[in-house]
Amino acid sequence: MNNIAYYNPTKVISGEGCVKNFQNFRDFGKSALIVCSHSAARISGALDDVRLLLNNAKISFEIFDKIEQNPFVETCYEAGALAREIKADFIIGIGGGSPLDAAKAVAVFAMYPDYEPEDIFKVEFTKALPVIAIGTTAGTGSEVTQYSILTVRSIENKKSVASPLLFPKIAFLDPVYTHTLPFESTIATAIDALCHAIEGYFSLKADEVSDALAEKAIEIVGRGLISLTRGKLDTDLRQSLLYGSTIAGMVIAQTGTGFVHAAGYPLTYFDGIPHGTANSYFIADFLEYMSLAREDKEKKIYKLMGISNMNDFRSLIDIAVPNRITLTREKAQQYTKSVCASRHLTSSVFTVNEEIIYDIYKQYVK
Amino acid sequence: MNNIAYYNPTKVISGEGCVKNFQNFRDFGKSALIVCSHSAARISGALDDVRLLLNNAKISFEIFDKIEQNPFVETCYEAGALAREIKADFIIGIGGGSPLDAAKAVAVFAMYPDYEPEDIFKVEFTKALPVIAIGTTAGTGSEVTQYSILTVRSIENKKSVASPLLFPKIAFLDPVYTHTLPFESTIATAIDALCHAIEGYFSLKADEVSDALAEKAIEIVGRGLISLTRGKLDTDLRQSLLYGSTIAGMVIAQTGTGFVHAAGYPLTYFDGIPHGTANSYFIADFLEYMSLAREDKEKKIYKLMGISNMNDFRSLIDIAVPNRITLTREKAQQYTKSVCASRHLTSSVFTVNEEIIYDIYKQYVK
Repeated sequence: MNNIAYYNPTKVISGEGCVKNFQNFRDFGKSALIVCSHSAARISGALDDVRLLLNNAKISFEIFDKIEQNPFVETCYEAGALAREIKADFIIGIGGGSPLDAAKAVAVFAMYPDYEPEDIFKVEFTKALPVIAIGTTAGTGSEVTQYSILTVRSIENKKSVASPLLFPKIAFLDPVYTHTLPFESTIATAIDALCHAIEGYFSLKADEVSDALAEKAIEIVGRGLISLTRGKLDTDLRQSLLYGSTIAGMVIAQTGTGFVHAAGYPLTYFDGIPHGTANSYFIADFLEYMSLAREDKEKKIYKLMGISNMNDFRSLIDIAVPNRITLTREKAQQYTKSVCASRHLTSSVFTVNEEIIYDIYKQYVK
Repeated sequence: MNNIAYYNPTKVISGEGCVKNFQNFRDFGKSALIVCSHSAARISGALDDVRLLLNNAKISFEIFDKIEQNPFVETCYEAGALAREIKADFIIGIGGGSPLDAAKAVAVFAMYPDYEPEDIFKVEFTKALPVIAIGTTAGTGSEVTQYSILTVRSIENKKSVASPLLFPKIAFLDPVYTHTLPFESTIATAIDALCHAIEGYFSLKADEVSDALAEKAIEIVGRGLISLTRGKLDTDLRQSLLYGSTIAGMVIAQTGTGFVHAAGYPLTYFDGIPHGTANSYFIADFLEYMSLAREDKEKKIYKLMGISNMNDFRSLIDIAVPNRITLTREKAQQYTKSVCASRHLTSSVFTVNEEIIYDIYKQYVK
C-alpha cells in the first residue's frame, strides 16, 4: 500500500510590510534569540524591523550573527548554548537557507544541554523551541520545511536533520527584504527553488497536492528565471520569486529532493560552489532521466515555463550559469560515491545507478 | 497593507487502505467518540474499519450516529455531553460534510459543560478535543478546514464557526469509502467542491498558494464533473474527485467562500435542496460577475476545465443539475436579505450588491 501524507503546519504570512505589521511576537514568549549571518539580515532591513518590534513588545533578545554560508553544526551548537543562557523562549531566524536551517538546529540544541554537536543527527529529539523564519532570499524553502541541512566536518559533507518539530511556526515573506540580494545570488537561489519544484514533482512521494504546488512553483520560478537571464529584475519579479520559492519549499516538505541536491552538496563542500549554482550542474540531466518514467510531467514543465523542449531547458540553465568549474577524475569518482551513499537515487520516479551519476559528473572532467 | 496568511496544519493521509493501515490512533488517547450519520459511515465500510482499529489498539469508544443532514447545533451539543460522559480524548468524524462539521462542534462542546448550544457562536473558545476526519464523500472539504457549518433554528439558517482549533489533526482520504455514494450525491458534492475552488480563486484573500491549489482543484473536479455528466463513474474518477475536493477544501481554509454559498444556504434550510445542488444555482452567475474584475482567471478556469467559454460552463451546470425548483417572489426577497446580512458580498474581487443578488434569485421565480 502506497499511502501518501501531506503535512505542513507552518503559517505563511506574506506581503510588503508583513513583519512590521505583526503584533503577536509576544505569543511566543518574553525572550528571543535572533539567528542570522553577519550582513544579510542587516542590509535587508529585516533585523532593524525585528529589533523594533521586539523592543516595542518588551521582549528581551540577543543576536547571534555568526552563521556562515553552509553552516557548521558546531556553530549552531554554540548558538544553542547562548539560547539557553538567555533563557530564550523562541528563535527568530533571519536570512537565506543558511541562517534559517541554523535557526532550526539552534532550537534543538537549546533544549538539550547534554548534546554533543553531532548528536542532533543521532539521537531522536522530542522537543525544540519554536522558530520564526524571516526570509531574505528567494530559493531555500527552509522557511516552510522540517529540514535543517548542516555541514559536518567529520564526513566532509552536508547532512540533513528532519523532524516535524522543525517546521517554523511562522514564515514571513516580505519581498522588500530580498531587494538587496545581489543579481548573481538571485539567479542561484532561483535555480535552487526551481530544482526543489522539479525534484519534488518527480518524487515517489508526490501527490495531487504537492503536484499542484510544484506546477505553480515551476511556472512562477521557471518564468522568473527566464526573465532574469534577460537581465530583468524589478520589484514584481522579486516578489513572485519569493512566493514561488516558498511554494517550492512546501513541495519538498512533502517529497524531499532528488539526486540533484545530493550531487550538488560535494561541490559546495569541497569546491565552494554556491548551493543553487551547484544544483544547476545537474538539473537538466535529472529532468532528462525522469522523463523516461514520466514524459507527461516533463512536457508539462516546458509548457508551464513557456519553453518548447529539453534544448530550451538546457540553454536556459547554460545562460543562467555560464561558467562551470572543471573537476578532476578523482573528484568525480569521490563525489559519485558520496551521492550513492545517500538515499536520493531511489526516491524519484526513475531510479538512476552509480554509473549514471558518474557519467553526469564526468561531463565536468576536462 | 494587505498581508495574506496561509495556514493549514491538518495532516492529509491518502490512498486506498490508508485508514486500515494507520497504526497510531493511540497517540490521541484511550477513549474516542465516533461521530457519524446513521447509514453512510456503515455502508461505506469506514465505521467497521475504525472499530476494528480501535479495538486492536484497546481504545474504548462510543458511536454517536444521530448526525442529520445539515446538522443542528443542538445535536452536536448532545453528542458533546456524551463525549464528556465517556471521557473521550478525541473525536473521530466519519462521513460527508455534515458529520465532519458536527464532529468539530462536538469537540468544542465536549470541553465546555456550561455552554448553551448557541454559545459556540458567541463565546470565544480556547480548547477543543482533537478531531480525526474520515471522509466518505468528495465535496465538503471539511476534513481540511477550520470551519463548522451548523444549522440554527433561531435564525432559520446555517451559521459558521471558525477557529484554528477546529482543523482536524488528520484527514484520511480513502477513495474506497466513496464507492457507495449514489450518483446524484456524487454530482452534487462535486459541484460543491468546484464552487469551493472557484469562490476561493476569486477571493480577496487568495494568494499564490491558494491559487495553485484552486487551479489544481478546478482542473481535477471540473473535468471530473464533465465526465460525470457523460455518465462515467469509475474507481479512478472517484479517487480524483476525492483528492480534488480536499484540495478545494484547502483553498477555502485560506480564502473562505463567496456569495454562492451564502445564496445556497436558505435554499437548503427552507426548501431542502442539498447543499451542492443549491450552490449549482449560483455558480455560473458568480463566475460571470467575477470575470468583470479578473477576466484572466475566468479564462484560466475554462482552460483548466477543457471548455471554451461561459456558455459551455452554463451548459455543464444545466446538464449536471437539470431540474431546478421555482421560488416565490417573497422567498426571493427574503433570501436576498439573508445573503446581504452575511459578509459574503464583499469578500470577492468583484463586489455585488443587493440588487444583483435579487436579480440572481429572480431567475428562479416563475
